[in-house]
Amino acid sequence: MDRGTFLKELAVETESKILLVVLDGLGGLPGEAGKTELEAAWTPNMDELAARSVLGLTHPISYGITPGSGPSHLALFGYDPLKYEIGRGVLENLGLDVELRKGDVAVRGNFCTVEERDGRLVVVDRRAGRIPTEKNRELCSRLQEAMSEIQGVEVLFTPGMEHRFALRLRGEGLAGCLEDTDPQHEGFEPLLLRATCPQGDKTVAVVEELLGRVRDVLKGEERANFVLLRGFSEVPHIPSMYELFKLRAAAIATYPMYRGLARLVGMDLLPVDGMRLEHELETLRRYWKDYTFFYFHVKKTDSYGEDGNFWAKVKVIEEFDRLLPKIMALDPQVLVITGDHSTPSKLKSHSWHPNPFLLYSPYVRWESGQVFSEKACARGALGQFPAMEALPLMLAHALKLKKFGA
Amino acid sequence: MDRGTFLKELAVETESKILLVVLDGLGGLPGEAGKTELEAAWTPNMDELAARSVLGLTHPISYGITPGSGPSHLALFGYDPLKYEIGRGVLENLGLDVELRKGDVAVRGNFCTVEERDGRLVVVDRRAGRIPTEKNRELCSRLQEAMSEIQGVEVLFTPGMEHRFALRLRGEGLAGCLEDTDPQHEGFEPLLLRATCPQGDKTVAVVEELLGRVRDVLKGEERANFVLLRGFSEVPHIPSMYELFKLRAAAIATYPMYRGLARLVGMDLLPVDGMRLEHELETLRRYWKDYTFFYFHVKKTDSYGEDGNFWAKVKVIEEFDRLLPKIMALDPQVLVITGDHSTPSKLKSHSWHPNPFLLYSPYVRWESGQVFSEKACARGALGQFPAMEALPLMLAHALKLKKFGA
Repeated sequence: MDRGTFLKELAVETESKILLVVLDGLGGLPGEAGKTELEAAWTPNMDELAARSVLGLTHPISYGITPGSGPSHLALFGYDPLKYEIGRGVLENLGLDVELRKGDVAVRGNFCTVEERDGRLVVVDRRAGRIPTEKNRELCSRLQEAMSEIQGVEVLFTPGMEHRFALRLRGEGLAGCLEDTDPQHEGFEPLLLRATCPQGDKTVAVVEELLGRVRDVLKGEERANFVLLRGFSEVPHIPSMYELFKLRAAAIATYPMYRGLARLVGMDLLPVDGMRLEHELETLRRYWKDYTFFYFHVKKTDSYGEDGNFWAKVKVIEEFDRLLPKIMALDPQVLVITGDHSTPSKLKSHSWHPNPFLLYSPYVRWESGQVFSEKACARGALGQFPAMEALPLMLAHALKLKKFGA
Repeated sequence: MDRGTFLKELAVETESKILLVVLDGLGGLPGEAGKTELEAAWTPNMDELAARSVLGLTHPISYGITPGSGPSHLALFGYDPLKYEIGRGVLENLGLDVELRKGDVAVRGNFCTVEERDGRLVVVDRRAGRIPTEKNRELCSRLQEAMSEIQGVEVLFTPGMEHRFALRLRGEGLAGCLEDTDPQHEGFEPLLLRATCPQGDKTVAVVEELLGRVRDVLKGEERANFVLLRGFSEVPHIPSMYELFKLRAAAIATYPMYRGLARLVGMDLLPVDGMRLEHELETLRRYWKDYTFFYFHVKKTDSYGEDGNFWAKVKVIEEFDRLLPKIMALDPQVLVITGDHSTPSKLKSHSWHPNPFLLYSPYVRWESGQVFSEKACARGALGQFPAMEALPLMLAHALKLKKFGA
């Protein structure tokens, strides 16, 4: 019996409520005064809660592996991140709030600069000198106007930051098995479009025509006179959290990529009237009666980690801590506070270090006299475990899993 | 996606240096004064390092399993020891410094005493009274002289200790799928040669002729008048550490078997001008610039453990500790100190107890106020994990792994 089937057969629908708080990139490394961001933060509410909770550390993928946000979130939602791979093109579109359906082909694009040399088209700048986002928007709308449809396939260009954009193809008989056209180095020709599966032929024909028409539209541009395409992919078929776990799940997240990931696993996306934590809390309160699982995403811990801004990350953690009593007032049966991956300011990037994990429920074996910190979690009663086991733990503590076997 | 492919796609080549120190059989059991060998040893340098490192315990194979040196080393080198099995014949040949190539068949042999009874050849002593090694050498060279080639297959006998020898067959169309001829009990005939795969027929014919000729050569011997063959095997195809992990790897080891294992995973074998630890250190210094991964093997901890000599094992650990500052002076980006398996003097053999594991790098979450001991490792922030995960952890801390997914 595989793990999916197994949990599916044990899960029962009940009214108890699970709240999963993801402080994105929460885990850190010792910086100022030998403390991590979480240790340096003044968090009386989380510390008090830690003493009535159980602690541990989670590995998003496996030892030493630094995950992107896609796989690390899938793991927290209870899915095996090695089984359900999310392509770069899909993630880029989700991140720009583009709706994706089964069968769509999603692509990541760069504007680039090309030059004719001896009759060959050579890439001289893979990022078109990082054109301003403003310019990018203008070019994408010109491209969109010139080609909303090719060979019966609907085409959607969505501008991102600087030279980046997302491309979505929607139509019958498409496939995501195309190789990148980006040669990865300047001085080379864009790579020929090539499908790695037989179903890819139609997509190759569509994208070839698209590239020809893009070249015509951009020919007069000084810098952004062509595009490179990468990460062709399709939305993977992911069974919903309701199908697998009988959870009526909702997402409270303000950044598009996380909303997109939540939609992929069948969560409802709840409206948030602003970008601050209080706005997210307001949404949580408003919809508290309507769902049995809430994913509550706090983005800025990761953003400041990526910036290498230790104290700004500390402040976001403290800001969340001040909100905690209001969350507890809702009386969740299970509350988890964790990260999707670590983002130590010291590394200015995601890292492989396991995530601090706190699970509160009336049915935990309490930690005594603990605080919520990486060190306390490393010695916590849950030990270290794969992040994809967090969801079964939440279900169990919410009394939503039947006994296995008799 | 399987683990091998997965790491291969994430590994990048950089100049940062990883040093893996294997104190063979390091882990112990409480003996004198209730302390293990590692706890009884005076190790100020390792203790000081432990406070700036992260600790844990590794399981070479899985809970309760006592490994041989082959699988336990493969695991430390990042290979799944259940996937890459190394036959006894291969290990015996490697241990005697015999070079093995793809396609060779390697066998482990015993001299034995046989007697004719009612026309049957019966084994009366499976070890030929443990003949002296001197005698073994003489017999092997007589056998070698009598048969350097059989049916176009090159034959190589290499004497081991007492009654043990290694046999290597090299030629076209051989296969290692032959069953042992050792009946395992005295009073029985040697077992008939039998192949368990169709490709084994030629090898059966060659070994049958070989056994006949061996019997002729040894007929006049009083004790060692025949041989029993075991552990027919071929070198497994193991991708190199460069292929899988982009590591330019070198081994500093003085005992043949460990050099052989290192060669199997594609390490360069560095010359060591003597059998003492200072000689190994001298080699490390001399080649420090030329590689990105060093395997530094200390054998005597295991040897004294096997002898049941608690204090001699303690002294080897202390000897290594005195060397540590000179190793740290080379400024490795990642240093691991661990064992391949435990060899408690109390058991006089390898054991299943997990290995103390210390990882130093600028990117660890520090342990505070720890020493390097089994107890400290059991409470270490790395927890308990499979030994094969040690290599991904080393790669991560040396910043040699890309992010998985976006």
